[in-house]
Amino acid sequence: MSGPVRRAAILAIGSELLTSGRIDSNSLVITDALNAIGIDVLFKAVIGDDRAELAAAFAYAMSRVDVVMFTGGLGPTEDDLTREAVAAELGLALHEDHAITDAIRKRFEMRGWKMPEINRRQAMVPEGAVVLANPHGTAPGLWIEARGKCIALMPGPPREMKPMLALIVQGRLQARAGGIQLRRRILKIAGRSESRVEELTQPIYSRWRDETPPIETTILAAPGQIELHLSARGGDEHALTTALDRGEAAIREILPHDVFSADGRSLEEVVGQLLRERHLRIALAESCTGGLATSRLTDVPGSSDYVDRSVVVYSNTAKTELLGVPADLIAAHGAVSDPVAAAMAAGIRERSGVDVGVGITGIAGPGGGTESKPVGMVCIAVALDETVARTFKFPGNRELIKTFAAFTAVDMVRRRLLGAAANADWLQK
Amino acid sequence: MSGPVRRAAILAIGSELLTSGRIDSNSLVITDALNAIGIDVLFKAVIGDDRAELAAAFAYAMSRVDVVMFTGGLGPTEDDLTREAVAAELGLALHEDHAITDAIRKRFEMRGWKMPEINRRQAMVPEGAVVLANPHGTAPGLWIEARGKCIALMPGPPREMKPMLALIVQGRLQARAGGIQLRRRILKIAGRSESRVEELTQPIYSRWRDETPPIETTILAAPGQIELHLSARGGDEHALTTALDRGEAAIREILPHDVFSADGRSLEEVVGQLLRERHLRIALAESCTGGLATSRLTDVPGSSDYVDRSVVVYSNTAKTELLGVPADLIAAHGAVSDPVAAAMAAGIRERSGVDVGVGITGIAGPGGGTESKPVGMVCIAVALDETVARTFKFPGNRELIKTFAAFTAVDMVRRRLLGAAANADWLQK
Repeated sequence: MSGPVRRAAILAIGSELLTSGRIDSNSLVITDALNAIGIDVLFKAVIGDDRAELAAAFAYAMSRVDVVMFTGGLGPTEDDLTREAVAAELGLALHEDHAITDAIRKRFEMRGWKMPEINRRQAMVPEGAVVLANPHGTAPGLWIEARGKCIALMPGPPREMKPMLALIVQGRLQARAGGIQLRRRILKIAGRSESRVEELTQPIYSRWRDETPPIETTILAAPGQIELHLSARGGDEHALTTALDRGEAAIREILPHDVFSADGRSLEEVVGQLLRERHLRIALAESCTGGLATSRLTDVPGSSDYVDRSVVVYSNTAKTELLGVPADLIAAHGAVSDPVAAAMAAGIRERSGVDVGVGITGIAGPGGGTESKPVGMVCIAVALDETVARTFKFPGNRELIKTFAAFTAVDMVRRRLLGAAANADWLQK
Repeated sequence: MSGPVRRAAILAIGSELLTSGRIDSNSLVITDALNAIGIDVLFKAVIGDDRAELAAAFAYAMSRVDVVMFTGGLGPTEDDLTREAVAAELGLALHEDHAITDAIRKRFEMRGWKMPEINRRQAMVPEGAVVLANPHGTAPGLWIEARGKCIALMPGPPREMKPMLALIVQGRLQARAGGIQLRRRILKIAGRSESRVEELTQPIYSRWRDETPPIETTILAAPGQIELHLSARGGDEHALTTALDRGEAAIREILPHDVFSADGRSLEEVVGQLLRERHLRIALAESCTGGLATSRLTDVPGSSDYVDRSVVVYSNTAKTELLGVPADLIAAHGAVSDPVAAAMAAGIRERSGVDVGVGITGIAGPGGGTESKPVGMVCIAVALDETVARTFKFPGNRELIKTFAAFTAVDMVRRRLLGAAANADWLQK
């Protein structure tokens, strides 16, 4: 090898990845793994099962980067061309590796099947290539060093690719990556708009670029949730962690109640842990969210320990029957109103005998909006010892409004559990 | 122009698209739009905000295809390099277009703001380029014809890109695309495994490749749902439609009850329409799916017309209190059992006074499994005039099991509504 590996390209092979039905998600995992050992991804590309395009893209990548990471095109059929195209481009002959043929044959025999002859193609190895075992499929991976570059050929199915990637990165690549590392911390923020987070944090994080080690910052927005990605690069892992700790502390100081996670946990996991720690149980009454808030809360393993029940009450009759919401309260304020949300929250709390009740009622659209109660208006209430309701106006289409409302309801539970201070400055965007 | 436009490359520009937090979804929309007028996408790539990489990738694409479709990198900041890199590579001078500057200034003034000077960069136009209006943002698009190729520069935000793409495709590109069109039909299939669908349909669709016009077939799998994509290419739109009609009919003949959609509708939309047509209302009782089945049903606009209510009953007490499931039935069979699923379905149907009741109870994991009732075991019941329950074993992790179970419950409603024949051969994989 001529020098340290710093620059990578990712090539995903497969005509199905050039349709609108499939997307290359392998490259996200590969990017993260390479970044973590200080290797930059300069570009990534998706190429169909076409020998000429594959060969041309490979030659191009070889001209730009130190390591080319392939996924896909290692199957047994005529369409699977990665092995052949790479070997041809590098001028390497292909030989059948009988140990691989035997391993593939055994995989078939374990299921009582005979190995089809075409699977022999998967045992073809370019001269000088290292074979990478694939315990999860028939296609082994290949590692090639040629012309001062590294080339990895990995299978396309994520289940097969991921363990192989981990071994390549921890072993062969880390040894060549020049000791530079990248550490990332993701601060997840609720209850603030993207522009408000930018406005508040930019004066702080803009100074970090000139410090040692420097911290790069990116802001990403999802419905309800803003993510601040801090990444530090350098040779001293301890210094990177210290810099990120300092960065996280500075952001938490200005958004003390809004940063809800810095360790990868979702909002639902954070709220689940709060409920579990305090031995509290929760029940929900949902209207416009149609069960989405409960579904998200119960995505967390073990959530049946603290989620007691939920009801989806679309009709006014159901609100009255299942939750005891007085019919005249609905008549007086309308089904979408703070008093009805509060009655739903208090009703589900009382009837299920739990500690925390949630009520959500709103207009998810596209129909049903009026001038005074437009599409996107959602009232959310949380009943703890006392019941508090708030009205929100969410943007977007039906699915987006449901997502915003479900996220905000769970965040409102979090703020209620954390006490008055967490609510006081909320939504002062 | 030297000849018809047949081959395209898509280049998405932006360093944020090279992180694991963001994915290029524009290319899916662009691929579909190009395919529809018979233009193949040979490859697509994501390139960071780096002048040298951008220029090299552009030069490479120009050497391979007839049309290069850019998205992103048209913003006002120093990082936005697409305009400059393309103009430099083609040797075209950039001039400020004062009409654009005025339009941008007006957008700012409408909000009471002053246009920042950096926005002038968005008004720079390479000589000979056509300016494409962007009613949804400050960055106009550009259309360039040079060296016998077409180059489109579109903004990155999908809301701004999509309408511009539609105009480019219907206008400039369709005129050059050589009259070849591609029509696609997606058959959505429930209740069969991917390999069973392949086994049943492959002998049929393999013959289509040699017919005129030929039909290409791809199989894609999502949790519970298999998609068969049929695509026909040719110059005669009527012949394409006829070929796809014939193909669809042949597939429906061997999978009469499993193909649930050929017009893009989701399973939830199909079931919603069945319920609406028959003036039926539905209520659900969910345990392991945590409200996901109801949330999916209510993703359909207007679903409040036929979804009456749902309850999520995790605890046995809640099953008894809210649904009248006898405590001794749970004691005798366990909460995850066909009799309990049936009692849940019948209970929610009776208590809410609707026509269709659904009961779902199972083990989503990762905890809670036993040898006789492992993780992934789910019992689903549908109560119509009579109540039918079935036990399933779904693979995967908690989220996947929830998704399979919710999808299957909705499909079971569909089959019950369609009558006995739709159930008879179900799940004979």
